[in-house]
Amino acid sequence: MGSLKQRKTIRKYQQKDIPVDLLNDLLETAFRASTVGNMQTYSVVVTRDADRKGKLAPAHFNQPMVTAAPVVLTFCIDLNRFSKWCRQRQAEPGYNNFEWFVTGAVDALLAAQTFCVAAEEKGLGICYLGTTTYNPHLIIEALELPELVFPITTVTVGWPAEDPAQVDRLPLEAVVHEEVYHDYTPEDIDRLYAYKESLPENRQYVTENSKATLAQVFTDVRYTKKDAEAMSELLWNIMKKQGF
Amino acid sequence: MGSLKQRKTIRKYQQKDIPVDLLNDLLETAFRASTVGNMQTYSVVVTRDADRKGKLAPAHFNQPMVTAAPVVLTFCIDLNRFSKWCRQRQAEPGYNNFEWFVTGAVDALLAAQTFCVAAEEKGLGICYLGTTTYNPHLIIEALELPELVFPITTVTVGWPAEDPAQVDRLPLEAVVHEEVYHDYTPEDIDRLYAYKESLPENRQYVTENSKATLAQVFTDVRYTKKDAEAMSELLWNIMKKQGF
Repeated sequence: MGSLKQRKTIRKYQQKDIPVDLLNDLLETAFRASTVGNMQTYSVVVTRDADRKGKLAPAHFNQPMVTAAPVVLTFCIDLNRFSKWCRQRQAEPGYNNFEWFVTGAVDALLAAQTFCVAAEEKGLGICYLGTTTYNPHLIIEALELPELVFPITTVTVGWPAEDPAQVDRLPLEAVVHEEVYHDYTPEDIDRLYAYKESLPENRQYVTENSKATLAQVFTDVRYTKKDAEAMSELLWNIMKKQGF
Repeated sequence: MGSLKQRKTIRKYQQKDIPVDLLNDLLETAFRASTVGNMQTYSVVVTRDADRKGKLAPAHFNQPMVTAAPVVLTFCIDLNRFSKWCRQRQAEPGYNNFEWFVTGAVDALLAAQTFCVAAEEKGLGICYLGTTTYNPHLIIEALELPELVFPITTVTVGWPAEDPAQVDRLPLEAVVHEEVYHDYTPEDIDRLYAYKESLPENRQYVTENSKATLAQVFTDVRYTKKDAEAMSELLWNIMKKQGF
């Protein structure tokens, strides 16, 4: 618990393998996470092979963690296994739709995060790759994912070779609402984002990118509307193509 | 870690409150989970009030945990707060789309599961309510969620008043794939589901429901194609209505 509160993302790893027994033990722990109807509508693809990591890397914009981590885990929504079981048992599955895409995502993400907590408790470091939903088609190809299987997140994992400072978070009151959602006044926004905006590294981002505000670094540089709209269309199309 | 592997869902709670300080500490821990671009695209609505629980209950098909648990947490995708910050800082946000719905869901679910792990470590028991995405419109109404805020999962939490047996999980080899996805042969399916199908409680479900197989209990009774298709359409429509 203390360690959970002190955790940080690790992007640099020692050149040292993760024993198979340890990884399997962590995965078994992960699969103890809650799952709708005990259906376990997910699969995990384990990548250790350097060539396979090389194939995955472009999907993740060649972030160095993908090829440098001893293990890359791709957590997938999986309605294929359950549907195959149904068909083989004279039952007609109805899981090829949006509701089960979302339900599978919930299942897969609870397992992923349980894996991460357990791994960190063993001294391992992890990094999530948000790029997973940007280029799902490349991951589907690299990992040979069949219909009704869809990559929802990726975790790189290894023994830490860095000890970065913990990054900031919004104050609790920014995220927690008592009883009903209390929408934010302009004064709330100023107060809740003041600390983040005051940080030297964030001020530097603003200067480096020749922007007037930190928010503009997000909207104009890091996460633009244009990119998000193109990715939304791609994500939807690939979801459909995978049979959902 | 040992306890993580032994965990189980708790549906019955003592009539005993969760101190505000403890809950806040657990939420702070939860918000240490990874988040895309450190944007924390989620909010949590805390329900303690009996009337409010009564308003939430129908959305969860009146499962007794909603009104019996001292605390109900609704984890929401939230692009409202971040977009408001952008607009107030002369930045034009582009987060009202499907990509950010999914990204917000990932963020929210990692925080939710971190909360649950931390809560269980303190002796609390939790139950996820998959019903959250079945009736999102009822939850949006009950919790007064504005545009760009969407309930993705709900957790009931309290001090355990039961000690159920741990339920089964599929064998590890059913869920883990080495390097690429290895699709399942009919023999694989038979082997991987044999234990689940052999369990007395599952055999009883088959008999009780006058079905030929356990899979038919899922497809014909618990999670039908007809329900899933109706819920998919509703989920999509409410997602659009909330501005994504």
